[in-house]
Amino acid sequence: MGLSRDDALERDAADPLAGFRDQFLLDEQLVAYLDGNSLGRAPKATVERLERLYREQWAGRLIRGWTEGWTDLPTQVGDRLGDAVLGAAPGQVVVADSTSVNLYKALHAATGLRPDRREVAVDDTNFPTDRYLVESVALERGLTVAWISPDPATGATADDLAAVLGADTALVLLSHVDYRSGYVADLPGLTAQIHDAGALAVWDLSHSAGCVPVGLDAAEADFAVGCTYKYLNAGPGAPAFVYVADRHLDHVRQPLEGWFAAADVFAMAGEFAPAPGIRRMLTGTPNVPGVVAVDEGVALVAEAGIDRIADKARQVTSYAVHLLDGHGIEVASPRAADLRGGHVTVRVPDAEAVTARLVARGVVPDFRNPDLVRLGMSPLTTTYAEVWDGITALAEEVA
Amino acid sequence: MGLSRDDALERDAADPLAGFRDQFLLDEQLVAYLDGNSLGRAPKATVERLERLYREQWAGRLIRGWTEGWTDLPTQVGDRLGDAVLGAAPGQVVVADSTSVNLYKALHAATGLRPDRREVAVDDTNFPTDRYLVESVALERGLTVAWISPDPATGATADDLAAVLGADTALVLLSHVDYRSGYVADLPGLTAQIHDAGALAVWDLSHSAGCVPVGLDAAEADFAVGCTYKYLNAGPGAPAFVYVADRHLDHVRQPLEGWFAAADVFAMAGEFAPAPGIRRMLTGTPNVPGVVAVDEGVALVAEAGIDRIADKARQVTSYAVHLLDGHGIEVASPRAADLRGGHVTVRVPDAEAVTARLVARGVVPDFRNPDLVRLGMSPLTTTYAEVWDGITALAEEVA
Repeated sequence: MGLSRDDALERDAADPLAGFRDQFLLDEQLVAYLDGNSLGRAPKATVERLERLYREQWAGRLIRGWTEGWTDLPTQVGDRLGDAVLGAAPGQVVVADSTSVNLYKALHAATGLRPDRREVAVDDTNFPTDRYLVESVALERGLTVAWISPDPATGATADDLAAVLGADTALVLLSHVDYRSGYVADLPGLTAQIHDAGALAVWDLSHSAGCVPVGLDAAEADFAVGCTYKYLNAGPGAPAFVYVADRHLDHVRQPLEGWFAAADVFAMAGEFAPAPGIRRMLTGTPNVPGVVAVDEGVALVAEAGIDRIADKARQVTSYAVHLLDGHGIEVASPRAADLRGGHVTVRVPDAEAVTARLVARGVVPDFRNPDLVRLGMSPLTTTYAEVWDGITALAEEVA
Repeated sequence: MGLSRDDALERDAADPLAGFRDQFLLDEQLVAYLDGNSLGRAPKATVERLERLYREQWAGRLIRGWTEGWTDLPTQVGDRLGDAVLGAAPGQVVVADSTSVNLYKALHAATGLRPDRREVAVDDTNFPTDRYLVESVALERGLTVAWISPDPATGATADDLAAVLGADTALVLLSHVDYRSGYVADLPGLTAQIHDAGALAVWDLSHSAGCVPVGLDAAEADFAVGCTYKYLNAGPGAPAFVYVADRHLDHVRQPLEGWFAAADVFAMAGEFAPAPGIRRMLTGTPNVPGVVAVDEGVALVAEAGIDRIADKARQVTSYAVHLLDGHGIEVASPRAADLRGGHVTVRVPDAEAVTARLVARGVVPDFRNPDLVRLGMSPLTTTYAEVWDGITALAEEVA
């Protein structure tokens, strides 16, 4: 592989997904946006649909919007997301609330299915919200947290899990793609291992949804949550999703049982009766513009195809690793393309200051405390030229 | 008072708030929109600001938006809402999540402050989400629900409370304005009565925020939640708010402690440490467009002034009651203007069918199970002519 910018341009010319970049609003001031795994770019179709939503539906239809489609959006978009992104058959996914709120519901629902087991397991390298909420739910339910301790340079393996899994394990919460290293956990294998111990598998898909195939149904995962403002490009703070496997739906209770979780939302009945299906994972009034933005983001992934997206992720992150090697920059992500999601993390001295200097020159990666810089490559929008320019700038700033 | 349309037009001409209607996108197809208390109209400034947010901030600034202002939006807009709408000094309000999610947090936080008390009280006429969540939190914490039983035609009084308040009462949850009758509870008086029993007052302001003054600080209320898509005109499913009195902030814990509730959001530290102030009531990544929409809605209320808004609410609902009396339609709301928020509810036969026929002719009220039709009058947008046209149509459909 040649280390020239022309080589990068040739790769872009040959990229089968290259045309998708035109479907996003681009700020030509930026040299390289390498943080689409924190906040994805704005799809043109999303912005146009939101403008119609405000001017035609909200202003024009007003309250009638709820009976003309809004009420069903969380399940409808959930089904589309399940199909295009998660490998989930209809009726198991809703789009609403934040990832944190959904995770809280999922953790309660899962522990409720294993009332006699006293431990909840989570890896100590997991994203803060995941660790915080496991501790919170454990505290509320009088359970103990069993900490899994994977190699922070990768992520949880079968051996790591074997060290904590036991007859007392109610659930294991893991991230599919590690937010720092980019490591892709073996979702089917670890799910099977968790099931062998009689426990339930709860997956956080925030860094995989829209970037690598998930296959929740095929893996017989139990619960999953994830965010939509990264590879699903639904905008800052867009609603998240929660998946509950069909076989659990009639048995789960989640404590945030607001009116949208009720069997008949508008009956205003005296007693709470949960909705029969996935709708029981809802809580309050869903944010309509947010769910609409998720719908458009999912449509783009569906159009491109998750397998082609994952293929580009492997290729563009491999290209990044090749460039980083050439510059002698330490790669803190797995070297095997199959073990990486859409980002490559590097370890550099003064990572926070380096990141700030890069941002000042129009190269936007993400600093991760204390010594990591994360280079996110969003397959639908990131070009090889951007990666070349960004890593060239990184090498200059590190030197 | 004359029962002519000209009289309504004269009232509109004399309405000091009449000019505000021009600040909203109007659908001239509608004869009368009498459901602004379910979903308020779309302010022009909101739609324009959201379009700039998408095209300039999201598309143009991308992840940098978080360090350029988005992170502080929930507290900043919370402070503005506190000042203009709630009578709350800065540092006690955040805008995020749904009313239901916020109520869940507030109920947990409040019961945590009264660990030795075994009862939580709520009125059996309260909005479903409020009742459901009190029952859910009671179940989780091993508490008993003490049901307050007010007259459904009005709402909770001191006598109603006295029947359940005692040494075991941890908290009382009440709605400031009843979602069916429109009755305005005596927030300061009932709060004092609750405090006299050693309990905490949790107020749901969904039907009062932006319509009648609230005065949370003056009343020494403990907790409050409320929605923003009614009189605050922030759009379908816009984020809600939660208020915690300053004196409690250092002592409260709420279980939905996601990363935005942490003292240092981006430290990604090992142990959860709650943010020192109101930020600990946050959970996950806030929905930026939603909070921006709340900001614009609050700005309109601030510009009009909550006292002038409440004055219009009293006048326009009184006008509605006068018209309803003239048509012999049963008013199921308090007859005294000071005891009503911004809506008047009527009891009619075949209420659901009547509502459907009204909607078909461009008059949009709200059906409330089983025999009520709610006529919402949003002071910034509802005209006297709309009320005249709407009630004339109602009378025809009932006849």
